[in-house]
Amino acid sequence: MKLNTLLQSWLLSSLTLNVAASTSFFKEVVPTKRLTEDSMCQKLRNMEYAVRGKVVIKADEINTLLKSSPKGTFNFDHIVYTNIGNPHSVGQKPLTWPRQVLALADLPNEFGIDHPDVEKMFPSDAIARARQIKDALDGHGTGAYTHSQGPLQFRQEICDFIEERDDLKKGSVDPKCIFMTNGASSGIEMILNALISSPKSGIMIPIPQYPIYSATIDRFGGTQVGYYLDENKGWDMNVAELERALAQAKKEGVDVNSFVLINPGNPTGQVLNKKAIQDILKFCSKHNLLLLADEVYQENVYREDAEFYSCRRAARDIGLDQSGLELVSFHSTSKGLYGECGRRGGYMELMGFDSAVRDQLYKLASSHLCSNTPGQIMTSLMVNGPKKGDASYEKHESEKNAIFESLAKRASIVSDGFNKIPGFSCQTVAGSMYCFPRVEMPQGAIKYAKKTGMPVDTLYAVSLLEKTGICVVPASGFGQEEGRHGFRTTFLPSEEEMVRVVGAVRDHYTAFCNEYK
Amino acid sequence: MKLNTLLQSWLLSSLTLNVAASTSFFKEVVPTKRLTEDSMCQKLRNMEYAVRGKVVIKADEINTLLKSSPKGTFNFDHIVYTNIGNPHSVGQKPLTWPRQVLALADLPNEFGIDHPDVEKMFPSDAIARARQIKDALDGHGTGAYTHSQGPLQFRQEICDFIEERDDLKKGSVDPKCIFMTNGASSGIEMILNALISSPKSGIMIPIPQYPIYSATIDRFGGTQVGYYLDENKGWDMNVAELERALAQAKKEGVDVNSFVLINPGNPTGQVLNKKAIQDILKFCSKHNLLLLADEVYQENVYREDAEFYSCRRAARDIGLDQSGLELVSFHSTSKGLYGECGRRGGYMELMGFDSAVRDQLYKLASSHLCSNTPGQIMTSLMVNGPKKGDASYEKHESEKNAIFESLAKRASIVSDGFNKIPGFSCQTVAGSMYCFPRVEMPQGAIKYAKKTGMPVDTLYAVSLLEKTGICVVPASGFGQEEGRHGFRTTFLPSEEEMVRVVGAVRDHYTAFCNEYK
Repeated sequence: MKLNTLLQSWLLSSLTLNVAASTSFFKEVVPTKRLTEDSMCQKLRNMEYAVRGKVVIKADEINTLLKSSPKGTFNFDHIVYTNIGNPHSVGQKPLTWPRQVLALADLPNEFGIDHPDVEKMFPSDAIARARQIKDALDGHGTGAYTHSQGPLQFRQEICDFIEERDDLKKGSVDPKCIFMTNGASSGIEMILNALISSPKSGIMIPIPQYPIYSATIDRFGGTQVGYYLDENKGWDMNVAELERALAQAKKEGVDVNSFVLINPGNPTGQVLNKKAIQDILKFCSKHNLLLLADEVYQENVYREDAEFYSCRRAARDIGLDQSGLELVSFHSTSKGLYGECGRRGGYMELMGFDSAVRDQLYKLASSHLCSNTPGQIMTSLMVNGPKKGDASYEKHESEKNAIFESLAKRASIVSDGFNKIPGFSCQTVAGSMYCFPRVEMPQGAIKYAKKTGMPVDTLYAVSLLEKTGICVVPASGFGQEEGRHGFRTTFLPSEEEMVRVVGAVRDHYTAFCNEYK
Repeated sequence: MKLNTLLQSWLLSSLTLNVAASTSFFKEVVPTKRLTEDSMCQKLRNMEYAVRGKVVIKADEINTLLKSSPKGTFNFDHIVYTNIGNPHSVGQKPLTWPRQVLALADLPNEFGIDHPDVEKMFPSDAIARARQIKDALDGHGTGAYTHSQGPLQFRQEICDFIEERDDLKKGSVDPKCIFMTNGASSGIEMILNALISSPKSGIMIPIPQYPIYSATIDRFGGTQVGYYLDENKGWDMNVAELERALAQAKKEGVDVNSFVLINPGNPTGQVLNKKAIQDILKFCSKHNLLLLADEVYQENVYREDAEFYSCRRAARDIGLDQSGLELVSFHSTSKGLYGECGRRGGYMELMGFDSAVRDQLYKLASSHLCSNTPGQIMTSLMVNGPKKGDASYEKHESEKNAIFESLAKRASIVSDGFNKIPGFSCQTVAGSMYCFPRVEMPQGAIKYAKKTGMPVDTLYAVSLLEKTGICVVPASGFGQEEGRHGFRTTFLPSEEEMVRVVGAVRDHYTAFCNEYK
């Protein structure tokens, strides 16, 4: 059993640092800092965030080395970043029309919409929409703080979008209940901040989950109450398991006040059916739990037998929209077919919230002044795109379709491909941008990992990175059943690259099993 | 003494709500919410943020009424929002060149920098810079998440800017120590999060202060340790007062770990001289306090006898840059001459920080993925503008100068104007965008305010709003000595409007004194 040099030096450097820090000699030499890992907020220190964790830091280091090292130093010529849902970073082209509108909205009128040559560069519907956006911004342009929740007209467009998507009566959704946010993350953070009043405040989260939840709950000092998704049933939800998790938490003195649902699933790629969603709503209603619905992948549903069914629609369908059920749904421009991550656009919709709590959230939003205007504009465009007959309609639709169809193909490439690797098992990916294969780890790896105090799937992920340049996130970063191992990968790089990735993962796994048998 | 109808109804509605909520009948009728003001995070509930507080909410309500009411319903035809430093919302035009670069950076190449007609609409240096920015973003464009701290090349430009501004040796500032942030606010929040490890964690803040500090300290559950600025000496800093405040806090068992300096001052408009800055650094070094330097108004210095002197430069000048002093400086695209608030661009530079703490801050930044890319681009442009000889240089400089000169004029209009009102006293405004006059309140107003439990300067600000349409922030929202009263106003509306505002404030004050004599 032999570790390659990089991995070895990395493990050694971690050990060295720990040893050095614990000798009193070292402590005397280094000048005392006021803010250290020991004196800082320990909740923040102990927070874990795997998506950009140790493996990714290592990948960035190798990426830098790659540029300065002679050819042949590594077995690969580039890092394949499949650790994060960041479509444009791995080749997805931005949709054209939203960028054209955005550019015109940013340009002062005389250099943009009113420039004599504007029609040479921009289609008529982009010009018209930029004009509308300038009106929505009260003529202040993109450089002014907006209303803390976002401009009223954008919020109204979001309401219209939700009503149309869910076939709700016109006027069912109130712009007062919409908060535009910097991506979905900042909305999630606001709600968790409000929900966590003491260490006993419990939030039910799926296992596996997207680590923004565990990280933020840790940071605000609440308690994670995990409920397991059923891997053998395609990561389905199981009400008995929800009841078990809740009962156990209550027995332990946790005051469970809320429930997180991620649908379509991250990292698990499932799309829940109507009954499952309705069951969750009933469960929340029965136990008086506030429901956080992370629905940022609502456009990313690839299987013909699957369909996105929003919690908002479910609430209406089973009559819980008027009953006082508290629901917040998050959406984002980062995912879907826009993939505009860097824009940090998004919103949350509150349903059934106490209006005094809504005022408190308004206050919190105000202390950050407002979310960024280009992100707000992108959100407005996402929920209200070109209409049939508009100059850009055909092009926009065809760009979106191409992205969608390719994503659907890639979803199959990875889940089918991984499933064919002996020792791997991968649920079918119905939605989102991820798959989450289970990987049997060789005994030698398990033993070695135990000895070094590193989760075995981190050992695996580091090895995969160093041998192939493929950067995945160890499954332990998302939570999983004891004894299960694996990783999360996106399928965002090109179809060709994903085929290569599957092959490289297979070959590496054979070598890894030999190395650690 | 007679309150006008709106104020009366506002006070009554608050009272009514309180009464209704306390009757058991009401409690039975309304369905129980899980998340209420009582069950939510109490630190968040108790947090105050005055800049967009009650008076502004009232202003927004009137603004809506204004649009739907017949002419003559109010004494004014528009609200003058001087509550917030939001230049573009009150008529300041954006600088042209940064918007042109931004638009081209957002456009896909074939529709932007490579479009055959691009030179008809855009100057050559904007096209060239957009090309560089696309390279800095690794060819991923503005739609991808960047490095959690911002792209390396942008951070390097920030380092160059700081080194040039402070006449530091090339290479003194390390891009690893730069974090690009959504405005300065999110950087401030990150640092305060790290600093507050228990309710005893104390942060020294000026009184008066910008309420993001008090609000965020409250939200994270730390302790504010106020030190008073000396109003009679133009809001100067006084070391004896710093020692007093620190000693008192220590006596009360507070573990004071840090010190906030806002220079140029918000809300106070002073610009500290070299000695004052150096004294603060020595004070922090002596007591091992981490220094948070809010330097977002560094370009907003209007008096010829004043000069911005950064903490970074002071540290070098007195040899504290190598001593281990921990300093973080915040900057933003929202202020200065850009005034690009909606962009949410900014950065913080860490000096002397423990590298393990820096890693923790990196982790925290990563959990938010990255700051928004248009904000990052605007920051890059702000720190590295057009150079002499570039196509846009002359125009860019002349636009900046026009904004600067007009701000300088308006600073005098308000501080001189308020000073001439009997009962008002206003320190000269040397910098920033605000002035903070002291106002003698009539006894009747003080008594009435006491009776209703409302700070008297809130009563005053609401009255000013309702009679004149001018929206200021009560001084109590920023902190002030017991018995002092007043308000903060920006001087961002046009010169003409600011002359009118001063007159209207004077006339209203006479009427207010009569009403409450």
